[in-house]
Parts: sequence; C-alpha cells; structure tokens
Amino acid sequence: MGIFNVELKKVVDDSYKIEIGFHLEDTLINDLKNGLVGNISKFALITDSIVENLYAKDILERLKKEGYTADLFVFEAGEKQKTRQTKEMIEDAMLERGYRRDCCIIAIGGGVVTDLAGFLAGTFGRGVPFINYATTLLAAADASVGGKTAVDTPLATNLIGLFNQPKKVYLDIATWQTLPARQIYSGLAETIKHACISSKELFEFLENNMDAILSIDKNACEHIANENCKIKYQVVMKDELESGLREILNLGHTVGRAIETVSDYQLLHGEALSIGLVAEVRLATDLGYMTKEEADKVVVLLSKANLPITIPEYIDKEQLVKKLYTDKKVKNGRLRFVVQKGIGDVVEFEEGVFATPIDEDVARQIIMSI
Amino acid sequence: MGIFNVELKKVVDDSYKIEIGFHLEDTLINDLKNGLVGNISKFALITDSIVENLYAKDILERLKKEGYTADLFVFEAGEKQKTRQTKEMIEDAMLERGYRRDCCIIAIGGGVVTDLAGFLAGTFGRGVPFINYATTLLAAADASVGGKTAVDTPLATNLIGLFNQPKKVYLDIATWQTLPARQIYSGLAETIKHACISSKELFEFLENNMDAILSIDKNACEHIANENCKIKYQVVMKDELESGLREILNLGHTVGRAIETVSDYQLLHGEALSIGLVAEVRLATDLGYMTKEEADKVVVLLSKANLPITIPEYIDKEQLVKKLYTDKKVKNGRLRFVVQKGIGDVVEFEEGVFATPIDEDVARQIIMSI
Repeated sequence: MGIFNVELKKVVDDSYKIEIGFHLEDTLINDLKNGLVGNISKFALITDSIVENLYAKDILERLKKEGYTADLFVFEAGEKQKTRQTKEMIEDAMLERGYRRDCCIIAIGGGVVTDLAGFLAGTFGRGVPFINYATTLLAAADASVGGKTAVDTPLATNLIGLFNQPKKVYLDIATWQTLPARQIYSGLAETIKHACISSKELFEFLENNMDAILSIDKNACEHIANENCKIKYQVVMKDELESGLREILNLGHTVGRAIETVSDYQLLHGEALSIGLVAEVRLATDLGYMTKEEADKVVVLLSKANLPITIPEYIDKEQLVKKLYTDKKVKNGRLRFVVQKGIGDVVEFEEGVFATPIDEDVARQIIMSI
Repeated sequence: MGIFNVELKKVVDDSYKIEIGFHLEDTLINDLKNGLVGNISKFALITDSIVENLYAKDILERLKKEGYTADLFVFEAGEKQKTRQTKEMIEDAMLERGYRRDCCIIAIGGGVVTDLAGFLAGTFGRGVPFINYATTLLAAADASVGGKTAVDTPLATNLIGLFNQPKKVYLDIATWQTLPARQIYSGLAETIKHACISSKELFEFLENNMDAILSIDKNACEHIANENCKIKYQVVMKDELESGLREILNLGHTVGRAIETVSDYQLLHGEALSIGLVAEVRLATDLGYMTKEEADKVVVLLSKANLPITIPEYIDKEQLVKKLYTDKKVKNGRLRFVVQKGIGDVVEFEEGVFATPIDEDVARQIIMSI
C-alpha cells in the first residue's frame, strides 16, 4: 500500500495575436519566415471546397514558393461536414502523406473549418500547432477568441472537442467580399449577440451603419471585427474554462443550436442564432428584464441584417422543444437560459451564475409564439 | 489593419496521486465521497469485455449503492479495439444516455482502456475529469504516469490522442491475479525497459525476483509498481511534452510498435516491445555503447519473463522495415532510435537529444538477424 505523488504544476502561456486587415496572405508568409511556429517546415492546409479555390490554393502556392512542404486537405463545405468522420478522413490523408508530429496546421476558412481543424490539430500526434486564417465574418466574431474547437455528432452539436489555442489568427476582411450575402447576414448574428450582451455602443453602431457593413466598407468592418474580438476576449479572459461568465456568450444559443440541428443545417448557424435571440428577448421580456421596446429593437436590428426572426414552417416545434435538452447548459435534466438585461447587459442570477432554469412549458410557449 | 493581443498566461495544476495496493475499490468510493472530483454525481465507467465481469460491474454496483448515477460502457477487449470507431461508439452511447459535461469518466482496465478512456474524457464536452483504475501490470508501468492517451489508426499506433492527466490513478495489484500469464509477461517488458534506461538496481531486482513476480507476490509486485512509477515520473517530469528526454521511454518501441502493427496485434504490446528491446541492444552493441555481455543479460532477462526474443516467422521482415517509418520519432524522413548505454542508462547524443538517425540498411540488418 502506498501513495505516489505526481506533481504537475506549471505556467502555461497560450497567448497569441489576432491580426485584422485586408489581404493578409503576405503577412502570414512573413510571420512563418520569422519563426511564428519555430522551425517547422511542413504545413497541412485544411480548408473546405469553397475556400479551396478562393484563397487556400493561393496560400499553398505562396508556401511552396518559399520552399515549405505544404499540402491541401479539403472537405466539402457546410456545417454538416463538421463531424468526426471528416476529422478522421483528414487525419488518414495526412498520415498517408507522411505528416507526423513535426507539422503545423493552417485552417483557412470560416468557423466550420477553424473548429474542425483546431480540434484535429489538438489530437494529431497528441497536438501540433495551428494557425487560423479566417475568411468569414462569423469566424471573426466567434472563432477567433476562446479556443473552443469541436465537431458535431448526430446527437448534439459541438460536444466532442477541445479547448485549443491557435498560434495566431488572421482576420482577412478582404475575403468577406467573396462571401455569399447569406453568410454575411449569418455572421452578423454573433456580432449582434455580442452587442446585446455587453455593448450598447456597438448595438447603436450596428443600427446606424448596417448598410456600410453589408457592402463590406473597410472601416465599418474593421471596427466590428475589433469590437467582436474585444467583447469576446473580455468575457473569455475572465472565465477561460466556461464555468460561469462565459455562459453569457451562449445567449440565443439554447434555441439557436437546437433549431440549427432540427433544420438539418438548412439554416446557417447565424440564422438559427437569430431566431434563438428572438426567443430569448421574448423570454427576457416575460421575465421582466427587458422592456417590449428594447426587445423589439433587437428584432428590428436582426431584421435589418436580413436575418430570419421567425421559425420556418418546416420546423417541427415539438421536436425543437425536445432538442433543447441536448444543450450543454442543461443541468440535472433542466433547461437553462442566459437572459439579456436591457441592451448591452445580461442577468447575473447569483454570483457567477448567468444561466437560469426555465420550465419546459415556458420554453415551449415562446417557441410556439415565434 | 490592427493587432489584437490575446493574453493567456496562467498556472495550471494537474497534480494527482497514484495509489498502489491490494483491492482499492473501497478507497475509490471513499475518495469520491470525499470530493475527489468535486460534486460530480454522474459516472461513466469505461471498460472492456474481460474486465467488465471481473471488476467493473462490482465497482458499478458500489457506486450505485452510494446513490451515484453510473453506467457501464463496454467495448471488446484487445489493442485492435483502440480505435476512433470505438471512441465514437462510446461517445454516442454516453450522449444517448444523457451524459453531458457534468460527468466523470472512470477507466477500469489495462492500458488499452486507460488510453482510450483518457482520450475520450479529454474531448467529451471539451474535457471532463477522469480516473484510472488500472488492472494490469502494463498499465502500472506504462499508463499511470505521463498523461499520454491515444487511439490507433490503420496507418499508425498512438498518433491520434492527447496529453491528458487523470484526477487519480489506482494500481490494484490484486487484479493482477486474474491476468492471463501472457499479460503478466507482456507487462514485464515495460518494467524491464524502465530498468534498462535508468536503474541497474531494478534490473538486478528483476533478475533475482522473477519467480516471485510471476506468482504475484505482494511485496515484489508493489516494489516494481512503485519503481515503474518512480522511473517514469522522473523522466516525464523533466520533459512533460516529450521534446527530448522523454524519448528515452521509447527505447525498444521503434521496432516494437512496428512489429505490433505488422503482427496485426497477434503480439501483445509487451511481446512486441520485448523483440524491439532485443533489436535495440543489438544496435547498441554494434554502435559500441553496450558490451555483448550486457546485451545478452537483457535478452536473458526478457526470456526469463517468458517474453519472445526473436521475430515470429509469420512476420514479413521487409514489411516491418517499411513500417518503421510510421514511428513518431521519424524526422525529415529518417529513422531515429534511442540507444541504451550499458545497463541502466541511455546515450545522450547531444544536449537534450536522446535519439539518433539510423540508416535503413543498419536497421534492416538487425531485423534480419533476430
């Protein structure tokens, strides 16, 4: 009988930079030449079938021109592909082409690509470095800060994954110009959510500059990219492992994630989130934390961003209610919601607790009404 | 154009205890009641089809008796099952039964179970705590210290995984009594390897007490369990992310891992390692780092532990040579070997470098000779 103590206390530094700008391909190459990932010379570029031709092939060629070994690993575009199977397919392709622990992964694409590639990097050879070259507004809002990476499973979204920090994130706003309009709208949902939870100023900026944003005006877009990083960073920094405060980033996601799944990904993430935000401002109004006018302002702004504000007819609302229970915030079998307080704030129910149990009937009633 | 700094420097404490003893089921339950994993009350017990009936069901009942929620998740025994598919099957079963982020995983079994369950725990809900209840000598030698978790893929062993530290490890030596003799022998290979790399005393203890160990004598077994932890800990502590020193634990594994795969897991890990150790003492002798007598001592000790010391006839030796290149230590396309120096030491080729490039022809010649 004996006890053996394994002491593993240490300082970990996962700090990194997010660079925001127009056309950052050269910046990426220069960073690599300047030792961003040490002397690694082998790069696996993970991208999807849309971004492949738009940006990834170009970056691949630039890397090869500099004498690096680099290969493209491409999967079909779409949230539906963010699965363990896609991860496995890319792992096998990388192993087949001789990639081992001495490589770096560069994710080029939107949130689906960065989520999947970041997770893959975290488990490939028990962890290799990765870089995000984000080509969507949504990735700027959602995937650049927080280190959350994951894939979906048939039973739940984002439940298999890792906290894994990139070595650097590039937010290339020039790439937004090639985004389909629907993707721009979708990306704005997370930005609007950020405004709802912590910045009345950003909310008003969005109200006043929606046209400029939708036409990818440089200054307006750089401003929202910056604000997104700032807000998410402030929240995430205070609570890196999502024990409490970080749950506020989940505003709108209880219903949003569920609709996204029940729609079988016909709805984009931001579109589903938009409906989720409508549900949650209705809830906040019912609970007395928002006035009807404030709630309407949120709905109007979502609408201005061309986002859906009602549940599509093809969604089975009872199935949706059932699906709410796959939410990560469920505790002891009860639904829990983050609740907005006015515009730019959320309710802290008790110290460090930002989600509150809501009866299924209350949730059902709201879902039936929108 | 702007740079946003994400500062993520922090102190992480992954310390844990390894408890070594006979029949530790009660100890485990008491630890949980005393808050080993906080107030978590939901336990997913992951085990294999052999350990299920021997120990896991019993622990399941004890947990339930204490009022905990607990379920067994069982996969077929054997290294061949240490795959992404098995991980996925268990993830789906856990999600199906309502397991989310508020659970703890208890791995009950040998190295295959603890490797797979530790990896699964690291990615389930982006990480839930896990506990190892180790029921084999090999797990005591190999899986209790170091935090390495992984699964195998068709192209390489242990290349998809994580560094993930358990909350506690139990080495229940009483369970060794139900191990098939072959498993005991197999487990001893890692112990012999530990002696080879860093303890002449342990090597001599093994030479003098092999009979007692093989009949699971309490004192002898507790001694080797302790020594295994101590040696592995000393090596791992000095190099937690396997940049240099930790590679010495890979002694014998260059050839061993490859034979294990080429044998299609007909050889147990320790059996394959044993042949790998024979290959590497021959290499060390050729390179002048061991005398012929020292090398023979290692071969004799392996033989005393009833381990194979020649490559089985059914192995295609050319295929084996080719397979060497899937080794994690391969760098810039070259094979790299850890080399033993006398008994109880390894060669440090330059500061912090414990593996050396070896020509394929040299490796082939040794493989052909054993």
